[in-house]
Amino acid sequence: MSTDHDLGTILPGLEALYRDLHRHPELAFQETRTAATAARRMRALGFDVTEKVGVTGVVAVLRNGAGPTVLLRADMDALPIREETGLPWASRERSTDERGLDSPVMHACGHDVHVTALIGACELLTRRRDAWRGTVVAVFQPGEESGLGARRMLEDGLLERFPEPDILLGQHVSPAPHGTVAHCPGVLLGATDVLTVRLFGRGGHGSRPESAVDPVVMAASLVLRLQTVVSREVSPRESAVVTVGTLSAGTTPGAIPAEAELSVNIRSFAPAVRAKVLAAVERRIQAEAVAAGAPREPEIVPLYRLPVTANHPASTERVIAAHAAEFGPRAVHRTGPQSASEDFGLLAEAAARPSVYWFIGGTAPAVFARAVVAGTVERDVPHNHAPTFAPVPRPALATGVRALATAALVWLGPGTTEPGVP
Amino acid sequence: MSTDHDLGTILPGLEALYRDLHRHPELAFQETRTAATAARRMRALGFDVTEKVGVTGVVAVLRNGAGPTVLLRADMDALPIREETGLPWASRERSTDERGLDSPVMHACGHDVHVTALIGACELLTRRRDAWRGTVVAVFQPGEESGLGARRMLEDGLLERFPEPDILLGQHVSPAPHGTVAHCPGVLLGATDVLTVRLFGRGGHGSRPESAVDPVVMAASLVLRLQTVVSREVSPRESAVVTVGTLSAGTTPGAIPAEAELSVNIRSFAPAVRAKVLAAVERRIQAEAVAAGAPREPEIVPLYRLPVTANHPASTERVIAAHAAEFGPRAVHRTGPQSASEDFGLLAEAAARPSVYWFIGGTAPAVFARAVVAGTVERDVPHNHAPTFAPVPRPALATGVRALATAALVWLGPGTTEPGVP
Amino acid sequence: MSTDHDLGTILPGLEALYRDLHRHPELAFQETRTAATAARRMRALGFDVTEKVGVTGVVAVLRNGAGPTVLLRADMDALPIREETGLPWASRERSTDERGLDSPVMHACGHDVHVTALIGACELLTRRRDAWRGTVVAVFQPGEESGLGARRMLEDGLLERFPEPDILLGQHVSPAPHGTVAHCPGVLLGATDVLTVRLFGRGGHGSRPESAVDPVVMAASLVLRLQTVVSREVSPRESAVVTVGTLSAGTTPGAIPAEAELSVNIRSFAPAVRAKVLAAVERRIQAEAVAAGAPREPEIVPLYRLPVTANHPASTERVIAAHAAEFGPRAVHRTGPQSASEDFGLLAEAAARPSVYWFIGGTAPAVFARAVVAGTVERDVPHNHAPTFAPVPRPALATGVRALATAALVWLGPGTTEPGVP
Amino acid sequence: MSTDHDLGTILPGLEALYRDLHRHPELAFQETRTAATAARRMRALGFDVTEKVGVTGVVAVLRNGAGPTVLLRADMDALPIREETGLPWASRERSTDERGLDSPVMHACGHDVHVTALIGACELLTRRRDAWRGTVVAVFQPGEESGLGARRMLEDGLLERFPEPDILLGQHVSPAPHGTVAHCPGVLLGATDVLTVRLFGRGGHGSRPESAVDPVVMAASLVLRLQTVVSREVSPRESAVVTVGTLSAGTTPGAIPAEAELSVNIRSFAPAVRAKVLAAVERRIQAEAVAAGAPREPEIVPLYRLPVTANHPASTERVIAAHAAEFGPRAVHRTGPQSASEDFGLLAEAAARPSVYWFIGGTAPAVFARAVVAGTVERDVPHNHAPTFAPVPRPALATGVRALATAALVWLGPGTTEPGVP
Repeated sequence: MSTDHDLGTILPGLEALYRDLHRHPELAFQETRTAATAARRMRALGFDVTEKVGVTGVVAVLRNGAGPTVLLRADMDALPIREETGLPWASRERSTDERGLDSPVMHACGHDVHVTALIGACELLTRRRDAWRGTVVAVFQPGEESGLGARRMLEDGLLERFPEPDILLGQHVSPAPHGTVAHCPGVLLGATDVLTVRLFGRGGHGSRPESAVDPVVMAASLVLRLQTVVSREVSPRESAVVTVGTLSAGTTPGAIPAEAELSVNIRSFAPAVRAKVLAAVERRIQAEAVAAGAPREPEIVPLYRLPVTANHPASTERVIAAHAAEFGPRAVHRTGPQSASEDFGLLAEAAARPSVYWFIGGTAPAVFARAVVAGTVERDVPHNHAPTFAPVPRPALATGVRALATAALVWLGPGTTEPGVP
Repeated sequence: MSTDHDLGTILPGLEALYRDLHRHPELAFQETRTAATAARRMRALGFDVTEKVGVTGVVAVLRNGAGPTVLLRADMDALPIREETGLPWASRERSTDERGLDSPVMHACGHDVHVTALIGACELLTRRRDAWRGTVVAVFQPGEESGLGARRMLEDGLLERFPEPDILLGQHVSPAPHGTVAHCPGVLLGATDVLTVRLFGRGGHGSRPESAVDPVVMAASLVLRLQTVVSREVSPRESAVVTVGTLSAGTTPGAIPAEAELSVNIRSFAPAVRAKVLAAVERRIQAEAVAAGAPREPEIVPLYRLPVTANHPASTERVIAAHAAEFGPRAVHRTGPQSASEDFGLLAEAAARPSVYWFIGGTAPAVFARAVVAGTVERDVPHNHAPTFAPVPRPALATGVRALATAALVWLGPGTTEPGVP
Repeated sequence: MSTDHDLGTILPGLEALYRDLHRHPELAFQETRTAATAARRMRALGFDVTEKVGVTGVVAVLRNGAGPTVLLRADMDALPIREETGLPWASRERSTDERGLDSPVMHACGHDVHVTALIGACELLTRRRDAWRGTVVAVFQPGEESGLGARRMLEDGLLERFPEPDILLGQHVSPAPHGTVAHCPGVLLGATDVLTVRLFGRGGHGSRPESAVDPVVMAASLVLRLQTVVSREVSPRESAVVTVGTLSAGTTPGAIPAEAELSVNIRSFAPAVRAKVLAAVERRIQAEAVAAGAPREPEIVPLYRLPVTANHPASTERVIAAHAAEFGPRAVHRTGPQSASEDFGLLAEAAARPSVYWFIGGTAPAVFARAVVAGTVERDVPHNHAPTFAPVPRPALATGVRALATAALVWLGPGTTEPGVP
Repeated sequence: MSTDHDLGTILPGLEALYRDLHRHPELAFQETRTAATAARRMRALGFDVTEKVGVTGVVAVLRNGAGPTVLLRADMDALPIREETGLPWASRERSTDERGLDSPVMHACGHDVHVTALIGACELLTRRRDAWRGTVVAVFQPGEESGLGARRMLEDGLLERFPEPDILLGQHVSPAPHGTVAHCPGVLLGATDVLTVRLFGRGGHGSRPESAVDPVVMAASLVLRLQTVVSREVSPRESAVVTVGTLSAGTTPGAIPAEAELSVNIRSFAPAVRAKVLAAVERRIQAEAVAAGAPREPEIVPLYRLPVTANHPASTERVIAAHAAEFGPRAVHRTGPQSASEDFGLLAEAAARPSVYWFIGGTAPAVFARAVVAGTVERDVPHNHAPTFAPVPRPALATGVRALATAALVWLGPGTTEPGVP
């Protein structure tokens, strides 16, 4: 697809859109402004738009003759992280999360790139309606970071109320150089389990620890003890990550609080490892309460579970071929499994159709190259979820638009095999 | 002072006032409703009232002829604790603290008893004006729990703008049986230092710990390491307490946060122990950052420091004698130093005058007696700062009113020695 | 008792004896050389000597007419510590302890001073037989450090086979200035409980932690968790110490061992605190095994228990008076309870007779004074059990001989009240 | 190689030899009995034997005409582990290790299988001298577990004093089913670094922690802190293991010791990961001393370093083909990198010749199969270094003899390519 001219035409507008979205990030299920923007833009492109599919989700459908149905998905939500990029378009937004905590908000995971690139790819496809046949279902999903967004859209009839997809496509911006894409035919992203844990102590005056059971000490001991799950119970030939992403206890320095709350984020690839890690985590939580003489057993609530994100190998190879033609063969990388997780897999699982998910680079190649030479990529190239994560807007968007449109055309374009046989 | 009749007359009104204050607790320096109530009541008693002395403080003066000046102090603020008493007059209030966190609020330390008892004692004194000579300065102090309230009132001219006290008196409700008081001629309360500590890591995606420096793990390791200050560096013949009262890090389970914040509350009695503990705490904080390879040194901010609360021995003995006459000798206990702290000592220190501070019991004697017999006082009698702390209103208020008025009359009453020689 | 001349005569010989004992320290129940030396010396003084009372104990009796029976006790055993005093008479001995471990041995607790001073005091008493009436029972006790020595002597008939004492006297060298003594009429030394703990993991190759349960990590976590007993479960107004004195696991760096062994030493003064601490320690040990998924419950064996050492107040005051006459009133100090423990209390408890136990100074006064001025006594004056502990022999022995003989004469001397009424 | 008849003839004698070696294990560089046995048996086979090559090593050479030189290596040393197999031929030996500690000794790693299989393979080759041409160099290496054995033999002229090898072959018994072999063309075993760490505190009496710096607490905190190296600083896509294999502090429960000693065993595959882990370990060690206020910096001594064991891919494929012919194709497995380490790689590195190293199964297939079905291989099949590790002698030896002889004949046998071109 020679998209150069059309892309050049729409890129300035996309960059402006991107900066606007970046400046106004919204937390999971609060993406009303983002959703309204997406809905307006998609309607302007001639799509049939439905809002509030799964709280704040948006589904936009364009029917262009007989042919396969391609579902293109972008996620919309931002993170409760204080932006430290120092960019002119940096976010200064704050919001109240579901726990009632006020927090700064930032598009630290690049979902603003995804939303903009999906709108851009749809615009490209709209401009070239004569070059393809079939149906495009553009899905703007809320709450990916909460792990609940795909689930909410499915519960709200995503697969029943809208054309059934033959293939599902999604992408994620990464700290690799822009102009590159990375694919993995097979398991790409690990499974995630998030547990919310409440440890119950007994509150009291800070000067009288003997009359209290200190949940801060319980939480601290537990966090350290959780480190031994990966260091001692997971084989060096397997992979798992146990991260305590949030920990909070106490409201005043003078009192020992009555409880502590923490969230445990568990990544794994193999079911046996997942089971072993979950059991080991739970064992440590229970034992901590015993050691402390806690008045109540801890409360362990599974917040969400995400399956492994597994790309359909044959479909992935087709997209790889198309991307190699579009970006040049040296710009298409193959990658192994990543420890991150996604709820995109839930959509494919529910649809029982093949899916392909890939990474698009968003970083300045020179910055990346310098860090590679210095061996400091981990340290010097800001990664997703870091407060300094900052894709270079225009080339990152160009990469995303081209990658998504090209992939869609693998199924929609003229040389395509019949619908349903991806 | 035979207060029985007058006390019986005013107690129902005081109990209603108490329930109202208890239902509407206010955090430090937000005590506008409490202050307005106190000011209104004191004006009704004929006191000369000044508001907003030290943000939300109230000073009420009653001049009743030549004689000593007695400063009576009550603190007004509540705590960010969720009340769990289940009482009809339990608080359901929430408030935003100085960190911007929304929190439930509760009079878990009994300052509502103090405010009500001070108003009640002043009413008793007002009704008996002919029985004494001198000046009463009633001080309703804000922000005792923040450690900053006395300081703010002093900075705002408490000792310059109002009659200079010859003696300062204060009291605190405790979980002992109502109808009893406890005195300590000498050092009663320890010194407190509160530090706010920020640990800086490097944020990142929860699945990629190798690219981050995890401040949650740093905080956990620090909390455990801080336990060794008391267990290993303080002599068993000395006393200190190191409590981490608040710990908070992270806003989303999926990300490793960039920093963690905690508050360290240090109690001590001896200057050498205090110095050793502070040094040991700071050493551990710094070492934690080194161990973790943190990108920045931790930030350690002293939030406040309270001196030892030392009662003037001779004045204390005079109050003890008066209380023994009022409550009966078996109801007056002598107690040793307590590990809690107060900013009442700052007032006495600044005035360079003697002071006496005592405890009044607030618990039902039968409840207390049962727990003593069972050896479960620590566990079964709710202490100050516990979410279940619940003095029995009427007898607790009676104890407080009688104790305060009787003590004031030691200086103001007919048999009193000359002013300035307490 | 004007002992100056006689003392001067015997001191050079005592110093030679002391240096010899110091050079040849022996571990608990291995004190054969020390016992043989003591027996020989006591026989030479005319005492009736019995050896092997309680494994290696020695009892020497001198009857000198009708009068009270005074039991004087010295302990004989040394410690498995590598001496670092650099003195000419430093120990280079090694020995195999009861666990089969080869170890350096040192008189780091000063029992060599005790043995020598007891022999010296008996020599003084022998030289002055005409000045007193009664019976002296000199007890050279083995295994004080093991906590089992007094018990073994009692089991072997100490109180049945030898004259029943009217009073029991003992003393311990301390880092105070020589020429001084310190007394405490009442509880002097705390109770001690020593537990031996075995943690069971599952051994394996060091590169395959997932197939093992690592007892080294269990032990480490337990040691840290034990710090929270004192820091969180003991009131700042009470006292306790929890020390892990030994920890050992693993024999080769390449393997994860199957178990770890550690000893927990618990000091306390109050029965309620002791019970709470013991329960808290045991709870943590059990919880650690649960957290780790250990294949077997830990094994907790009480190694020994020592009661509180409580001085008989009236008898102590009599010794204080005598010591004040002997050393001058400024050289006699009163001290509060110490956290150390002794099995001397077992003897008094079994005899059901009063006992007095005191400290004698052994350090150069100038060294001590400098450290007091600098506030560095804890750091710069070597204490008992430190590898640099080094009393100054001659003046330390003089202090010990005078203190013991003078105290014995309180009961044996001419002005004494009748036997049995100490 | 149809070895069936010859093997059957020699197996009973080999089993007797194995049981004898198993009953008499010897620690690193103490393998005098094992070496003497090997030397005697090899001389009986007609080899030219040299003893004491690298302390206790043995080199046996058989020249059989012109042809390649094949070095076959077996390691001889046992481990300080108490055998818990309960077998009739279990070890009851004890020995004193290089630290002077007396310990039980066990062939827990199967080096007795290696020695016996090497002797058996040489006997087979000797019986079939007419079927091959070339030189066999049988190396019985000491001290593999200490990491120093290969180094000592090289320093003692292994490559200069004996025929230079064209290929180096070695094998290790594993818990897989006997009759099977496992190969890995490429990196098979990780690199190992072993550090000995001494933490310096300040000794003192167990009841006076405030006068000491407790190295037991330092060691415990360090062990827990070391768990965070793998859990937080190693990517889930990389591999490393940090094991504290030995930890020892203190000799008496009553004293706080002056120091603690531990060994840290670090496994890694990639140089960048190794460097990161070593730096992270050292940072934690240093920080621990800072946190504790230690009087001296810790002492970190690298005990030994082993390189990665990398199999020569082409040579490995040749051995795989030969083993497939010998054992059947389903008995030959391909395996990925293992986290264990070996000093066999040092020999190949020094010789600058290709090498092949493989695993032979030693467990009863039924036992293994049951555990596989139950998913309990890690738990129920005893692995190397476990006190219950117990290969089934006769079939394990048969597997080892056949695998080694067959592999040697790849180079020595009739169809072999010319020497030097493996």
